[in-house]
Amino acid sequence: MTNQQRKSFGSDNHAGAHPIVLDAMLAANTGDVTSYGADPLTERVTRQLCDAFGAAGAFLVLGGTAANVLGLSLMLQPYEAAICTESAHLNEDECGATERILGSKLLAVPTADGKLTPDLITTQLAGRGTLRRAQPRAVVITQATEAGTCYSLAELRAIGEFCRAEDLLLYIDGARLANSAAFLGCSLAELAEYADVLSFGATKNGAVGTEAVIVRNSGLMAAAPYHRMQLLQLASKMRFMSAQFDALLTDELWLRNARQANTMAARLADSVSDVPGLRLAYPVEANAVFAILGREHATRLQADWNFNVRATLSEHEDVVRWMTAFDTSEADVDEFAAAIHATAGVVSQPAP
Amino acid sequence: MTNQQRKSFGSDNHAGAHPIVLDAMLAANTGDVTSYGADPLTERVTRQLCDAFGAAGAFLVLGGTAANVLGLSLMLQPYEAAICTESAHLNEDECGATERILGSKLLAVPTADGKLTPDLITTQLAGRGTLRRAQPRAVVITQATEAGTCYSLAELRAIGEFCRAEDLLLYIDGARLANSAAFLGCSLAELAEYADVLSFGATKNGAVGTEAVIVRNSGLMAAAPYHRMQLLQLASKMRFMSAQFDALLTDELWLRNARQANTMAARLADSVSDVPGLRLAYPVEANAVFAILGREHATRLQADWNFNVRATLSEHEDVVRWMTAFDTSEADVDEFAAAIHATAGVVSQPAP
Amino acid sequence: MTNQQRKSFGSDNHAGAHPIVLDAMLAANTGDVTSYGADPLTERVTRQLCDAFGAAGAFLVLGGTAANVLGLSLMLQPYEAAICTESAHLNEDECGATERILGSKLLAVPTADGKLTPDLITTQLAGRGTLRRAQPRAVVITQATEAGTCYSLAELRAIGEFCRAEDLLLYIDGARLANSAAFLGCSLAELAEYADVLSFGATKNGAVGTEAVIVRNSGLMAAAPYHRMQLLQLASKMRFMSAQFDALLTDELWLRNARQANTMAARLADSVSDVPGLRLAYPVEANAVFAILGREHATRLQADWNFNVRATLSEHEDVVRWMTAFDTSEADVDEFAAAIHATAGVVSQPAP
Amino acid sequence: MTNQQRKSFGSDNHAGAHPIVLDAMLAANTGDVTSYGADPLTERVTRQLCDAFGAAGAFLVLGGTAANVLGLSLMLQPYEAAICTESAHLNEDECGATERILGSKLLAVPTADGKLTPDLITTQLAGRGTLRRAQPRAVVITQATEAGTCYSLAELRAIGEFCRAEDLLLYIDGARLANSAAFLGCSLAELAEYADVLSFGATKNGAVGTEAVIVRNSGLMAAAPYHRMQLLQLASKMRFMSAQFDALLTDELWLRNARQANTMAARLADSVSDVPGLRLAYPVEANAVFAILGREHATRLQADWNFNVRATLSEHEDVVRWMTAFDTSEADVDEFAAAIHATAGVVSQPAP
Repeated sequence: MTNQQRKSFGSDNHAGAHPIVLDAMLAANTGDVTSYGADPLTERVTRQLCDAFGAAGAFLVLGGTAANVLGLSLMLQPYEAAICTESAHLNEDECGATERILGSKLLAVPTADGKLTPDLITTQLAGRGTLRRAQPRAVVITQATEAGTCYSLAELRAIGEFCRAEDLLLYIDGARLANSAAFLGCSLAELAEYADVLSFGATKNGAVGTEAVIVRNSGLMAAAPYHRMQLLQLASKMRFMSAQFDALLTDELWLRNARQANTMAARLADSVSDVPGLRLAYPVEANAVFAILGREHATRLQADWNFNVRATLSEHEDVVRWMTAFDTSEADVDEFAAAIHATAGVVSQPAP
Repeated sequence: MTNQQRKSFGSDNHAGAHPIVLDAMLAANTGDVTSYGADPLTERVTRQLCDAFGAAGAFLVLGGTAANVLGLSLMLQPYEAAICTESAHLNEDECGATERILGSKLLAVPTADGKLTPDLITTQLAGRGTLRRAQPRAVVITQATEAGTCYSLAELRAIGEFCRAEDLLLYIDGARLANSAAFLGCSLAELAEYADVLSFGATKNGAVGTEAVIVRNSGLMAAAPYHRMQLLQLASKMRFMSAQFDALLTDELWLRNARQANTMAARLADSVSDVPGLRLAYPVEANAVFAILGREHATRLQADWNFNVRATLSEHEDVVRWMTAFDTSEADVDEFAAAIHATAGVVSQPAP
Repeated sequence: MTNQQRKSFGSDNHAGAHPIVLDAMLAANTGDVTSYGADPLTERVTRQLCDAFGAAGAFLVLGGTAANVLGLSLMLQPYEAAICTESAHLNEDECGATERILGSKLLAVPTADGKLTPDLITTQLAGRGTLRRAQPRAVVITQATEAGTCYSLAELRAIGEFCRAEDLLLYIDGARLANSAAFLGCSLAELAEYADVLSFGATKNGAVGTEAVIVRNSGLMAAAPYHRMQLLQLASKMRFMSAQFDALLTDELWLRNARQANTMAARLADSVSDVPGLRLAYPVEANAVFAILGREHATRLQADWNFNVRATLSEHEDVVRWMTAFDTSEADVDEFAAAIHATAGVVSQPAP
Repeated sequence: MTNQQRKSFGSDNHAGAHPIVLDAMLAANTGDVTSYGADPLTERVTRQLCDAFGAAGAFLVLGGTAANVLGLSLMLQPYEAAICTESAHLNEDECGATERILGSKLLAVPTADGKLTPDLITTQLAGRGTLRRAQPRAVVITQATEAGTCYSLAELRAIGEFCRAEDLLLYIDGARLANSAAFLGCSLAELAEYADVLSFGATKNGAVGTEAVIVRNSGLMAAAPYHRMQLLQLASKMRFMSAQFDALLTDELWLRNARQANTMAARLADSVSDVPGLRLAYPVEANAVFAILGREHATRLQADWNFNVRATLSEHEDVVRWMTAFDTSEADVDEFAAAIHATAGVVSQPAP
């Protein structure tokens, strides 16, 4: 893929950065400051993040995989395991980074919709106290999920209370936490209430490249700076990461960006609801539209538009993912929706 | 330390970024591109780096510690060890990241001046073939060294040919490789000639935050993308890292920046050569001045100026490190030198 | 469980050692020999194992988990994964040792009967060449399987040829390889034909405590001694491990032991085939009988007999595992079978 | 080296096992018992070890390297380091197992005689609280030391109280702890008083192959069973390891064995005290004699006797190590001493 006219629906990572974020980086470029995070901007942003999340600490890192590995490094001994969904990003899409760096086993549970529940978690607890089993210690959920859906506050509470009752720690992979806040209309603190540690993604939401690991369980704080250092995430000129968060936290740019992405996904879903042979795989809640459509239709559409086939449903049907971003416009969506309609028209439908 | 009027001599990481680098990041913010490095700018910068170094591949990462760990990950099995100096950054200043992430032992050799030699490397080879010893496989040198000196091309050749004769792989920690190129007046390819893998630092030389791992040994290429991913260094919006290198490689900005830093260090060393009770610890070749001076003198100077005491030499004397950066000016140096002279004048010298 | 009159059907690890094995250890206790495996007995046993398996090397270790981790350490880089069944011992019953020590991800496939097939392996190959996926490199099968069944030579060939065609390495967990040889009536070399590395269990088959890691792929030999050392498996007084294998290899004691165990499992299966409400979960091929029976029946039987419930099948039925060992006698089986019959008689069967 | 008439002075691992130990293994071979350590003999031996050491738990493992890695696994997070001597077995002679398996850095201090002191430990504490340094957390000493000397109870107390004051954990590598108890005439509990964790070696002292990891700090107990499992040290037929300790603990066989070895080392040292050109490198306290002698003398002696040259002292002189074992006899020593005298007589001494 090259710079192009048509908006990509392939990933929210295909977008550039929000201009305000880049402006903030320029504005941070004034004279000398202490490196490795002991600068005033980093201190201020850290304080803001702690306030927003009711947290004990916040640690900026380079990307989402790094955030997940650092987050779990605070929770797990090597003989302890994390329970997650099979489709969890850290299970499927991070090249085994958790296993390699932490040595921890992931206990991955198949799910219909990418969401864990207390019942599903329970299926992985039988081995507690048994030497031959890695000991379940952390639960990992993704908010918004990899399926573009959001745990409701009630669902979060159910999982959170279950974890506390079972002496399990809760980690939330919040690569798209902003999108879930926008969908649920709730605060970051409400989303984080039951989490011991969570990540707060910025990269997909308009930043150049940084995520925050938010530590709410104060007992996990002491080791965090050393783990970040060892996990190759301590930026020397940290102010330029902090500046990105500073921009996003100012006037709720993070929320406005997420709302725009969500709204565009909803618009796209609406626009294609009457396309023959096309149906949604999951409710559209965050900034992803998972659609099931004929393989020939998908292939024809991909000739002009950038998006990914995520799964093969049958001999004739695929599941595709259409992502929107903070900079996806109504015009982008309308043009894409028109193309979906147009290509549907000329595709031969499989016999039932 | 806070933003301040006086230039910091504490670290070349205290400086901000060169304006051209930030401009390049802004210029890269045009529309959508594929993420994770499959964008045209990254492809171009990678090609440029390969050309400059006579290399098979180049992999951008977040920082210097990450570059070192990634570089060694391509060379070492867990039962293999790297030979380095005791003062090597990866031995002393990286929180044991190599041991933690690679599981490899470092065989650290005391040196007078931070430089390895074939003779010093030989002291660590006795255990080859012995089961109870981690097997020496890689040699790590730092160019410019942690003492602010540079291996000459002849010294590099001696080490390089020794490594080849002994079937050892050579890694160069080039966090300040630019400064050594500026001092030696040679090309990057000449510096890299004997290296299997090396890093090329940008952060300390005017970038916002990125380094390149340069792979010259083509046999080490296949695993590199996976190691970068697992070592939490694959940026999703890679173009913004690539843009930084693009700016530095254009019109040799990297070399001009390094020359400025080196020239300022030399100017500082010259300016203080006649300060009573002060002498240089090492030749000033790159952008660091290591000075030995009375503890009371150092303490008095630190009241107004930012720099670090690196070692305690005796009851009365310290070794301090003064770093210059790409943006250190003659005025900065002259003001600092004047302060060194002024504080020396009022310090009581210890009786001999 | 304490020393007791009744034979345990809980595990083949509950048995002691075969007297001939202990006699061999005594016989090895003559004067001084070089430690760490450079003794004549170890050299002889290693040669015998290499001959029997058509192998390049053989490395004795303490136990089955150690054998599996050492075996895979020769095959996998940290970004590479092993494909195995969900029920594989190294996935379910080794406390995550592979993940912790090798950092490698296991790609675990659900199976009906504990056996992998080329089709099942294929389901895990989609991520090859994709950075976000740990790269499949090794296939792990267990022979005899955890379900007490054996891969036929044809099944082994199909998997082996598939692995070669797909550039995958094959590891066989042979904790009960002897039992599969006894069942199939084939040689160890035939079982090992397609394996790059395999283990050959002795502990469950009459030894005091040792297993052999057999390396058939000579390209994997050089690193093996160092991995064994680092993985804490190099015994200083190795002769006492070698003596155990020496005893088992002499006059095919390993085969006679395995045959006895298998024959007793078959006898048990036959004896209970007409117990009302009881059926076999899998064909009885090696030395395990997996039976499905009423929960009340199982509980009542456990009052006097040692065995494990392996799974809950429904509200009323359990799957239990009855293991036989080299020293299980016909009288043991007959007494146990009588008890199964007797307790079945007094159990109230659930209404259909 | 092959089975031979002449006693080996190369290593206490060259000896076989004490007949009483093997008899105990035979005696343990009675019927079925639960595997993985839940057998009555293991329970009894564990209790005895806890009583002898005033400990919370005891965990049998295969060998000395395994004991050290397991011991440190209970103490160190991956960003924490252990302070030890350069000559420490775990630093020099374990193939980097600690680094590989725990990911922890060793801070190794040069010493004159293989002993740490509070002052030497202090040299490694400067980096506490500094992100770029692995954080010192454990202190490792070897008792008896690798130089064949013993820390006195006063020296142990000084180190122990220093560790407590500095919030450092103390690990004692007790591969030859028995020899130090025999030399000092003190109890195991006195030796262990300040240790959080220590090992108690049996293999070199007459066992077939096992060591105990003794956990005195009860806060470190919960994780220990899982670490032992993951570190590949949980023997399935544990009773045969326990039987070895049972034999050694009965009637203080461990102490009698160690006394015999020590007495023979002292006898050897005495016998050669007047050999021209030979002097002792260290006081002979445990079961090792380190002698400095002419290279030609050493070489000539090695033609008939098994021992190792440990270091090259000068162009003409070597340091050799002569180890005695539980089964070294007066006749063995006298024959060897006579040979040392005899070969000295015919060797040309270097000109002074």
